[in-house]
Amino acid sequence: MSRFGLYTKFTTHDSQRNALVEILLEAACEMEAVEGCILYIINTPDNDPNSVWVTEVWNDASAHQASLALEGARELIQKAKPLIARIEQIKLNPLGGKGV
Amino acid sequence: MSRFGLYTKFTTHDSQRNALVEILLEAACEMEAVEGCILYIINTPDNDPNSVWVTEVWNDASAHQASLALEGARELIQKAKPLIARIEQIKLNPLGGKGV
Repeated sequence: MSRFGLYTKFTTHDSQRNALVEILLEAACEMEAVEGCILYIINTPDNDPNSVWVTEVWNDASAHQASLALEGARELIQKAKPLIARIEQIKLNPLGGKGV
Repeated sequence: MSRFGLYTKFTTHDSQRNALVEILLEAACEMEAVEGCILYIINTPDNDPNSVWVTEVWNDASAHQASLALEGARELIQKAKPLIARIEQIKLNPLGGKGV
C-alpha cells in the first residue's frame, strides 16, 4: 500500500468538545462521497474531557490534501476553528491489516 | 456505538521494527476470523525508525479482552515480547464516522 494514515488530536477549549464532535461527524458524512477516503473515525478518550482523536486512512497523501480544499470541508474547518485550542498530528504509513 | 478503540504505540529495540511488523501482520491475519474485531491496522510513522502504531476498533471492550486469550494471539505475543522496549496505549470511544 502507498496509503496515507493520520491520527489527529484536537484539544478544545473547555466545554467545547461536544460541539466539535458534532462538526466532525458532519465532516465524516461529507467523506462518505469522497472516493479517496477509506476511514474517517471520530473518537473520544476516557481520560481527557477536552480532546477528540480522528483516525484517517486515505488512498494516498494527495487524496487527503485535495479533500481539505473541498467546499464542504472548508466550511466545517471555519466552523470548528474557534472551538480548538491545539492540534497534534501523527502521520502514518498503513502497511496492512483487517478492515482496510 | 458502545465500541472500543485503541491506538497502541510499540517502540522496539534498535533494528527490530521490521520483525515486529511481520508478527503484527500475522496477528492481523488471525483477526480476520475474529468476529468482534472491526479494525486492526498496522502503521509505521515517518519520523521514528523504531516505532509501530496499531489502530484497533472492536465491537466492545470485552471482545478485545477475549482476543488476547486466543491461542494464536498468545503465541504471537510471546514471539513479539523480546523485540519490544515500550508500549503506550490510548483507549478510545469510537463515536462514528466512515469505514466502521
